[in-house]
Amino acid sequence: MSISRDNLRNVTPYTPGEQPQFAKKIKLNTNENPYPPSPEVEKTLVGLDADKFRLYPDPNTGLLREALAKRYNVTPDQVFTGVGSDEVIALCFQTYFNSGKPILFPEISYSFYKVWADIYKVPYKEIPLKEDFSIDPEDYKVPNGGVIFPNPNAPTSRLESLSMIEEVLKANPDVAVIIDEAYIDFAGEGTSALALLSKYDNLVVTQTFSKSRSMAGMRIGFAIASREMISYLNDVKNSFNSYTLNYPAIVCGAAAVEDEEYFRSTIDRIIETRDYAEKEFKDLGFTFSKPSANFLFVKKPGVPGEEIFKYLRSKNIFVRHFNTEKLKDYLRVTVGTREEMEELFREIRAFLAEK
Amino acid sequence: MSISRDNLRNVTPYTPGEQPQFAKKIKLNTNENPYPPSPEVEKTLVGLDADKFRLYPDPNTGLLREALAKRYNVTPDQVFTGVGSDEVIALCFQTYFNSGKPILFPEISYSFYKVWADIYKVPYKEIPLKEDFSIDPEDYKVPNGGVIFPNPNAPTSRLESLSMIEEVLKANPDVAVIIDEAYIDFAGEGTSALALLSKYDNLVVTQTFSKSRSMAGMRIGFAIASREMISYLNDVKNSFNSYTLNYPAIVCGAAAVEDEEYFRSTIDRIIETRDYAEKEFKDLGFTFSKPSANFLFVKKPGVPGEEIFKYLRSKNIFVRHFNTEKLKDYLRVTVGTREEMEELFREIRAFLAEK
Repeated sequence: MSISRDNLRNVTPYTPGEQPQFAKKIKLNTNENPYPPSPEVEKTLVGLDADKFRLYPDPNTGLLREALAKRYNVTPDQVFTGVGSDEVIALCFQTYFNSGKPILFPEISYSFYKVWADIYKVPYKEIPLKEDFSIDPEDYKVPNGGVIFPNPNAPTSRLESLSMIEEVLKANPDVAVIIDEAYIDFAGEGTSALALLSKYDNLVVTQTFSKSRSMAGMRIGFAIASREMISYLNDVKNSFNSYTLNYPAIVCGAAAVEDEEYFRSTIDRIIETRDYAEKEFKDLGFTFSKPSANFLFVKKPGVPGEEIFKYLRSKNIFVRHFNTEKLKDYLRVTVGTREEMEELFREIRAFLAEK
Repeated sequence: MSISRDNLRNVTPYTPGEQPQFAKKIKLNTNENPYPPSPEVEKTLVGLDADKFRLYPDPNTGLLREALAKRYNVTPDQVFTGVGSDEVIALCFQTYFNSGKPILFPEISYSFYKVWADIYKVPYKEIPLKEDFSIDPEDYKVPNGGVIFPNPNAPTSRLESLSMIEEVLKANPDVAVIIDEAYIDFAGEGTSALALLSKYDNLVVTQTFSKSRSMAGMRIGFAIASREMISYLNDVKNSFNSYTLNYPAIVCGAAAVEDEEYFRSTIDRIIETRDYAEKEFKDLGFTFSKPSANFLFVKKPGVPGEEIFKYLRSKNIFVRHFNTEKLKDYLRVTVGTREEMEELFREIRAFLAEK
């Protein structure tokens, strides 16, 4: 009366960043936004017509796609939405990566690429970063089944230039090149690969509402690409799961996009706090490359990352530490509020003084 | 600069029931509930703390799983939740159906089973129903990689007995047997296979908030099974997508489950209207097996289903017609409000009088 083992899929579960449940803590470990979403989101939420819940949501998320199209100056049929960029990228893997040739992505990168490749049986090759954590475009000029990398990269927070991305696009005209821009809004004007869309039909740019739009709890991600690439994505999605984004996500998502002013002001505050954090880390002798996301990836030469991590944790300050050979010296620290960062640096100073 | 074809997944997109956008219409084509969700859902929604949206939702949906566990008299670790039962069942396919042996499901059944089997490369065998649309348990006593069927079945609205289900379970002790109970709440007391859970560790029961709980727009589904079976499902889900249900879905879902009284009263109203519809269809010379879901699957001997379908559509009444050899004589008609059904029968009478 118990299922036999050979029916089961073997998996290695992912360990998400801790979600500590007690109240007095500083949470700088999952790259969430320290500020609430636009007040328009709350207004929209309170105004929702609960009677509409009885109906299936719009499977094409028209309202949200139109808001995004307007904001990013594309047509609605160039926009695809999903339950977080996790769902969007997983669908990209299923849609675009079927040639049997290995896809390419950086060895240090978003950890789910490998997981999706495994689960959807897509062969892949992980390409080491250069010493300074930058991507060498030469590595992507080999036969492949597609390319994906985050820009800025995670967990390094390092930004690649548009000219580097264009070099990769030029070398790979007949496969999908996906730029995962979860953190691009923190990288400054003119950094998004969306600027290259009109020239490259095989470019797919993915973004998320979880970071810059303070809506991790609503689960919204999207892709923007040529009409053709988006139509393939829709075909696959509609073949097996018509209704993904729920009604509150669609309408609150649209409301958030329409409040450009709030969006800009929140980003500005986070960048200001990041500048402060950079200066503090530098003063304390930490090394890091210039951060372009809402987190910093730092190390203190001579002090193991795990020691600082554990000390901070004992003070109820949660940052992220990755226990792998290449990353173990580092800490990934989300940019919180100014007050949270001041508290962080007070504790780091105390820790270093004790040593 | 355009992706070459051999990179792309070939799919046949699913066609969901029409979602007509104009206001004056009667929509009896997607088995939605004609009544709004519990007033507690609206209260919860209005009371939501928008500041919480900035944080990732609880990946384990504790609040919702606890409410469901209490309601169904199981422990929270026997409950798994997802974005509609579509996501839950798709995950079941990925988790339980890996032996390489064909899984079994009825030929006339929920159309997505075949789609998921194809997309996850699970071999399958479709078993014809008996003449009267019932399932013959003998057909499921052959070597297989798992079993799944809806109860009540769709689009037939026909209920199978618990003793028939137990016969299938007894014959298949070492594979997953999934009973897809999307419509079970309309089938009366004592019909759910949940009653068999304590005896069969390989039984998985899936249900949804989209029908009986009037929350199709919120996308919530769940599975209940032994602790062991649920743990396998969690392992697979957490290996590639940690955060699926969003924050409003988790808290509003819990609120809906807790309002048992409203739930019962809505179900009672729908069953009462279904009884009325049965009587009317019978009076008009339609034939059908006893409906146990919130829809009827009817045919009028001598009158092609498509003719009635098109006539009703011209009157802005939407029902569902399937254009396949075995189903083309039939119409699937969702139970709406009493007033909607009265309008439906007025139009059917007018149509038949014209003929």
